[in-house]
Amino acid sequence: MRHFLWFIDYKKEEIEEIIKLAFQIKKETKAKIFKPYLKNTQLAMIFEKSSTRTRVSFEAGINQLGGNGLFLSSRDIQLGRGEPIKDTARVISRMVDLVMIRTFGQERLSEFAKYSRVPVINGLTDLCHPVQLLADLMTVIEFKKFDFRSPEKTLVSYVGDGNNMAHSWAILAGILGFNLNIATPKGYEVDNFIKNKALEFAKVSGALINFYNDPKLAVKNADVVTTDTWVSMGQEQQKEKRIKDFKGYEVNNKLMTMAKKDAIFLHCLPAYRGYEVSEEVFEKYEEAIFAEAENRLHAQKGLMVWLKK
Amino acid sequence: MRHFLWFIDYKKEEIEEIIKLAFQIKKETKAKIFKPYLKNTQLAMIFEKSSTRTRVSFEAGINQLGGNGLFLSSRDIQLGRGEPIKDTARVISRMVDLVMIRTFGQERLSEFAKYSRVPVINGLTDLCHPVQLLADLMTVIEFKKFDFRSPEKTLVSYVGDGNNMAHSWAILAGILGFNLNIATPKGYEVDNFIKNKALEFAKVSGALINFYNDPKLAVKNADVVTTDTWVSMGQEQQKEKRIKDFKGYEVNNKLMTMAKKDAIFLHCLPAYRGYEVSEEVFEKYEEAIFAEAENRLHAQKGLMVWLKK
Amino acid sequence: MRHFLWFIDYKKEEIEEIIKLAFQIKKETKAKIFKPYLKNTQLAMIFEKSSTRTRVSFEAGINQLGGNGLFLSSRDIQLGRGEPIKDTARVISRMVDLVMIRTFGQERLSEFAKYSRVPVINGLTDLCHPVQLLADLMTVIEFKKFDFRSPEKTLVSYVGDGNNMAHSWAILAGILGFNLNIATPKGYEVDNFIKNKALEFAKVSGALINFYNDPKLAVKNADVVTTDTWVSMGQEQQKEKRIKDFKGYEVNNKLMTMAKKDAIFLHCLPAYRGYEVSEEVFEKYEEAIFAEAENRLHAQKGLMVWLKK
Repeated sequence: MRHFLWFIDYKKEEIEEIIKLAFQIKKETKAKIFKPYLKNTQLAMIFEKSSTRTRVSFEAGINQLGGNGLFLSSRDIQLGRGEPIKDTARVISRMVDLVMIRTFGQERLSEFAKYSRVPVINGLTDLCHPVQLLADLMTVIEFKKFDFRSPEKTLVSYVGDGNNMAHSWAILAGILGFNLNIATPKGYEVDNFIKNKALEFAKVSGALINFYNDPKLAVKNADVVTTDTWVSMGQEQQKEKRIKDFKGYEVNNKLMTMAKKDAIFLHCLPAYRGYEVSEEVFEKYEEAIFAEAENRLHAQKGLMVWLKK
Repeated sequence: MRHFLWFIDYKKEEIEEIIKLAFQIKKETKAKIFKPYLKNTQLAMIFEKSSTRTRVSFEAGINQLGGNGLFLSSRDIQLGRGEPIKDTARVISRMVDLVMIRTFGQERLSEFAKYSRVPVINGLTDLCHPVQLLADLMTVIEFKKFDFRSPEKTLVSYVGDGNNMAHSWAILAGILGFNLNIATPKGYEVDNFIKNKALEFAKVSGALINFYNDPKLAVKNADVVTTDTWVSMGQEQQKEKRIKDFKGYEVNNKLMTMAKKDAIFLHCLPAYRGYEVSEEVFEKYEEAIFAEAENRLHAQKGLMVWLKK
Repeated sequence: MRHFLWFIDYKKEEIEEIIKLAFQIKKETKAKIFKPYLKNTQLAMIFEKSSTRTRVSFEAGINQLGGNGLFLSSRDIQLGRGEPIKDTARVISRMVDLVMIRTFGQERLSEFAKYSRVPVINGLTDLCHPVQLLADLMTVIEFKKFDFRSPEKTLVSYVGDGNNMAHSWAILAGILGFNLNIATPKGYEVDNFIKNKALEFAKVSGALINFYNDPKLAVKNADVVTTDTWVSMGQEQQKEKRIKDFKGYEVNNKLMTMAKKDAIFLHCLPAYRGYEVSEEVFEKYEEAIFAEAENRLHAQKGLMVWLKK
């Protein structure tokens, strides 16, 4: 039995298998073929933070696979309050077949997984967001012909906060071997543990991972430019300071001219126009952005089927 | 692709088709025959206001058709807060096959529909409540033999607030050609745009639509008497004033004597005894009232199947 | 049509039938055989109190039986507020096939059942918790070979608050004929109506039911020791006083030595270590405790199938 807690536990070949499966299921879905890969599979979806995309993609996804999703919000289940996580994990994992958790600390997720009898999926933590990256990877394959055999041909530029999205890009680049530039303002750099892990993986894969404090340098010649909100849930009180600190990090038409001519822009959403991205850039690349959102559905179906194989 | 936002977009023949389909599916349901008309269909149910009937009828309905319902409350999805409606619409409509929205302003619904790739259903807005009227129409057909070929034989009397229910009755009468009396207190008349639209439709259909400020005049010879709460969600602070202004508008035994002897009373629920209806009248006509509630289930199944044909 | 509101309405043979069915379905589930016993069955799950176990077990259960669960929290449905219970019951029971209610007062449940067209299940009230006891009974059969033919061979000791769990054990012992010792602090004895009912049943079944104010006496020679939280939901303001009053009622290693050597300890969860049970005892018997939790799933599947036969 495998969990999907972060990419660090995964080999390149395994990620490739998941993505392959995801594309196969996407093709079937588009052809209105719904094979019951996960018939009679109960997926518990535990949300300690609310999320439109994660919620709809997992629930629609498990339904399309012939299973069922149980939506458990923090109002309905008090993970670690009232009851230790180890008890909740032992109870729920005896009643369902798969668990998806969207929570705050990565350690809450690991604690649950440790006591779970069934596979546990990271639906988003403060540390990383690997299911989003599976969707992003599918989108880069579709729009920019990323190839697992020649990953060095692709350069992704992440511009913005050194948060869970930056962390996930760093680890994924390290494992798969594509090139990645990350530009963050001073004081918002990626976590050191993650940075070192990514560079360690990169030594094997050959990935070139560079860290900047200047978005223009980072975006130069990029195939894919991406960013994330400057103010994540729970950081609202720092909003004013952050907006000041992220000055110059808006992905706008001017910044996009630094990238390759046929570059695409991705965003994991929700997008705040006038902050991390301009309305013009957002709407110019909306085809890729919403394909990326839709790929959450397909990527996660691939992942769930892979975990239950 | 068609949306179901209000009756104004619909022709008489289309409404008749939906109702026909609804009765066929109701008959099958009663015979415990559940044909998978909407197998593998994911219905997103977005609720910005909570509602027992709308929730249970849509979710049970899509389940009975072989599909799945995803219940998204305003706690789980922040339509227009955090993210523009156009983004949410583009994301969700790539992941599901049908969307039902219960919201406040009709313009929120239209904005979602504009950006949606899949049919959007009005589950209730401040302006109108067309799915309730489909159920009411089924009930009038069942209990009062309403006939699409001779609609002029039926007189409906709506007594009370000139709200979304009054609006929906006015437009439906205008399109289908049955007769309608609406009695509202002064200051609580129906919206002018709706009134004019209804009268415009009535010129073609031959419907006689009259507006009164006296419930007795409106109820005279009615086949169907109906009303709605005087204090809708969000109007709680006006409660005292409204109760005073609606004096004399209670549908009680005395008022019902003005209607035809075999008239029925309908109510979209919840009902507030001692205000818009007396306990005696409510319980006397409970068979029709709860048949009406049940018809929400069947009407909406008909509608969903029609929209996905 | 039968409801499942409390054991008082049930005969020994009926409880035996339900348990038999539950074991048969459990066996099938363990063999990954999911027979669609309740295909196209819509289960409304009404929660006025939130509950992890009740929620997940009912929803996963009805899904595994081929039906669907509709989760209706007190946020989504206002039972008795806004609308009389009798109206909500008449509406919902025309739209679904089964109703599970977790509420406060038993009278709220009975009122709903009185007006319901479909079977209603008690998911937990302040007075009793019969579905939990079905799961507990299965666990006692599995771990302690309880036998419906020779119930007098089993002694259960309940130590703690004279609450809904104590009530349910008392009535079940009375009906089935096993022996039960209940120890509660002074002032926390079981409800008199329940006590008398239990003793009345015991006269027929031969059960020996004893009430103590000393946990050591109650646990002596027990096959099964069980307890429940000292502070149920809604009693938080009495917490300090209760902890004082329950001094000496912690089920710890010392107390367990009074029981039979091969006794098991059960807990309906959530468990508060250092209060009603020590961490040592909890973890020592965790196999039985989590089997008990899992049996909620199977017991309720048996019950639902039995009610719809």
